Amino acid sequence: MFPKEVYTKRRNQLREIMDDGIALVLGNPEAPMNYAGNVYHYRQDSTFLYFFGIDQPGFTGVFDIDNNTDYIFGDDVDIDDIIWMGPQPSVVDQAAPFGVENTAPFNDLKSFLADAIKAGRKIHFLPVYRAENKILIHELLGTPLSQIKEMASTEFIKAVVSLREIKDEYEVKELERAAAIGYEIHTTAMKMAKDGVYEREIAGECEAIALRAGGLLSFPAIVSKRGETLHNHEHGNLLKTGDLLLVDSGAETDSHYASDNTRTLPVGGKFSAKQKEIYEIVLAGINKGNDLIRPGVSYRSIHLEVCKVIATGLKEVGLMKGNVDEAVKAGAHALFMPHGLGHMMGLDVHDMEDFGEDFVGYNDEIKRSDQFGTANLRLGKELKPGFVITNEPGIYFIPALMDKWKEEGLHMDYINYDKVNEYRTFGGIRLEDDVLVTKEGNRLIGNRIPVSVEEVEKIMS
Amino acid sequence: MFPKEVYTKRRNQLREIMDDGIALVLGNPEAPMNYAGNVYHYRQDSTFLYFFGIDQPGFTGVFDIDNNTDYIFGDDVDIDDIIWMGPQPSVVDQAAPFGVENTAPFNDLKSFLADAIKAGRKIHFLPVYRAENKILIHELLGTPLSQIKEMASTEFIKAVVSLREIKDEYEVKELERAAAIGYEIHTTAMKMAKDGVYEREIAGECEAIALRAGGLLSFPAIVSKRGETLHNHEHGNLLKTGDLLLVDSGAETDSHYASDNTRTLPVGGKFSAKQKEIYEIVLAGINKGNDLIRPGVSYRSIHLEVCKVIATGLKEVGLMKGNVDEAVKAGAHALFMPHGLGHMMGLDVHDMEDFGEDFVGYNDEIKRSDQFGTANLRLGKELKPGFVITNEPGIYFIPALMDKWKEEGLHMDYINYDKVNEYRTFGGIRLEDDVLVTKEGNRLIGNRIPVSVEEVEKIMS
Repeated sequence: MFPKEVYTKRRNQLREIMDDGIALVLGNPEAPMNYAGNVYHYRQDSTFLYFFGIDQPGFTGVFDIDNNTDYIFGDDVDIDDIIWMGPQPSVVDQAAPFGVENTAPFNDLKSFLADAIKAGRKIHFLPVYRAENKILIHELLGTPLSQIKEMASTEFIKAVVSLREIKDEYEVKELERAAAIGYEIHTTAMKMAKDGVYEREIAGECEAIALRAGGLLSFPAIVSKRGETLHNHEHGNLLKTGDLLLVDSGAETDSHYASDNTRTLPVGGKFSAKQKEIYEIVLAGINKGNDLIRPGVSYRSIHLEVCKVIATGLKEVGLMKGNVDEAVKAGAHALFMPHGLGHMMGLDVHDMEDFGEDFVGYNDEIKRSDQFGTANLRLGKELKPGFVITNEPGIYFIPALMDKWKEEGLHMDYINYDKVNEYRTFGGIRLEDDVLVTKEGNRLIGNRIPVSVEEVEKIMS
Repeated sequence: MFPKEVYTKRRNQLREIMDDGIALVLGNPEAPMNYAGNVYHYRQDSTFLYFFGIDQPGFTGVFDIDNNTDYIFGDDVDIDDIIWMGPQPSVVDQAAPFGVENTAPFNDLKSFLADAIKAGRKIHFLPVYRAENKILIHELLGTPLSQIKEMASTEFIKAVVSLREIKDEYEVKELERAAAIGYEIHTTAMKMAKDGVYEREIAGECEAIALRAGGLLSFPAIVSKRGETLHNHEHGNLLKTGDLLLVDSGAETDSHYASDNTRTLPVGGKFSAKQKEIYEIVLAGINKGNDLIRPGVSYRSIHLEVCKVIATGLKEVGLMKGNVDEAVKAGAHALFMPHGLGHMMGLDVHDMEDFGEDFVGYNDEIKRSDQFGTANLRLGKELKPGFVITNEPGIYFIPALMDKWKEEGLHMDYINYDKVNEYRTFGGIRLEDDVLVTKEGNRLIGNRIPVSVEEVEKIMS
């Protein structure tokens, strides 16, 4: 929780940017697991946290842009709630630390909005990802469920992105706290990655570290010896010496700021020569990215420069061939790195992804590519001071993809398919740092997690 | 995963019990945290698991009662899915281990149901707790969102309850596996409950134990020195010697069968005389419950017998007074134990609570009481062999409740409010075992977690 003035300033800025109408920020409800009363760990909506702060279910924030004021709608608890959930502060007392003076019962929201609609005022809302909130929008505004997606307000989205994408000093401090938890997660995983351990034991420990620190994981941990599957959340494998273990995991602080790092570890503590060769290419890639990140440069151009480092390395190993610049232009490297270099990070690990990536990572100047691989780049636009972004190159050997490309005869001039086939069971390597764009260039968020071959082998020994 | 025949038999029985029509079992979708792509640990719907088995999102099971057959609707994955999520078996191959031979793409479900509706056939569905599935029912059947609750099929609910409430030998084995994880959770908490430890450190470890075992917690752990709040999920307090720590936690196996136990621990390892006095009353209560559980007896009668043990103990301490039988009849004990003695347990920790407690815990013979306290009893009906139930009495000192009752002058003949006031900051004690009703009587599920004062103090020393 930041000083009251931080939230007041954010709301004032938002109301200044927007032209007119009313703008709704729906708080998240509880999320049921297997029946309504059995819920997941509560996660408030990030935009609600950013402007209205209350980290509890049952609230909606409202910007009244025309009248330059804000409201929180929510209900006080009764004696039954106290018996089951303990004493709770009143809505007035919960809103006060965030500088919101106007509060009202939740049921008043519907008539408040009905009056506004009658008066011909615009009602803005953001894209909705929780189905309960889709139903709520439908009930409050009469918007057909099938039209909620297209009816979300572009003006509101752009206004929120323009504020949330620039992290202030308070936010950077929270991101550094998250990074410290992430550091513990990754160094713990390094110490645990031994022959005879199940992936789930390490994944469970990652999560326990986040919970002990008072928050949650910022996303479901990827702890897999099948690292070539990009979002692999299975944790059933038994580790054996010689396996590569990909650990992509981060924590949220109790204030919900995220960390997101990846390291790839040699089970048993020593990289083989073949593993080391590929690992060093990815390491050169991430280091290149960290060198290039600065304001005024598009992240797509950095993505492509890193892809060239990857392609150059793969050519040296004999997996690629031909002219590197042309290969990357053609998209041949995407056989090995089919994803983008990174994304924004903040209150969400993929910051503001609920708005749609194109509103967050692209703009009128830089549109998303439609080339396989680069099309998956979540952030392409020009960097600004205050952006916090991930830098996460990788090299993967995905049997289904290599077979498909070979069969289709794709990029025969740039890819040595016979050699590629020798890496069928290799797996995948990814490395990921979190980076703050500064006025001068950039700096990493938090201490760098051991990353060189020597550093990793040392901590694992 | 049980043998194929188990699932086939369950489905055959269900179709036999029901008269006619089509019965839908919606699988659960993924549950988003802060944007659609960032999801909680996946939890399949328990009824879907029971009849159709597949532990993945994207499926609906269908009983065609008229034609005596079953279907699974779901989609095969494409190359993009393989890159991000890894190779997946086809729907046909996923359905086969559960004996379901008819599969079809998910989009065919709508026309399948439209044809059935046109033919005048009944469509049964169960109460819906995931909002995504409310929208799905609305889209598939045209049921208005506001009517989904009342349109759920009572016939279908009763048929499912009649099967799921009786646990077979396979299920009992899984419940015993869950109990073993629960045993580790509770004995670990006992060893950790020392001065200077935060509640969240123990809660994090509970969850890690469940994750390491390959499953999840069966519900959010309650690890609180404010045990008088019945469902207290705050874990922010620092433990001090002399505190009571209430730990109510259980695990799910990878097959999603639950455990649910409660123990209350003296931080530092020694109960004070005052704590011990109240603890022994609760212990006498739980032991009384375990003595009485047998087929043919209503659980409400056992609840009331245990309440008499509690009231007798409280009278001996001077907190209650007057005739114990009359006090319990009047509901005076509910100041100290405002909840019921227990609930069904199985694939859900509160088994089938999504159907509504009255369908699971009550029937035409035994209706729910409307007296404060007993009204909260989740299970009142006559016990049968194969029921698995919790036995969880408690004594709590809830300041808001004691003040309210005193102010209203409630039960002045039975409660010594001056004495009660001396326990204002005492907290709460609950003990909970999981019990299988057998033909002869009952047995505990798994080994009994240390529960006597001596056992608890020994493991904490």
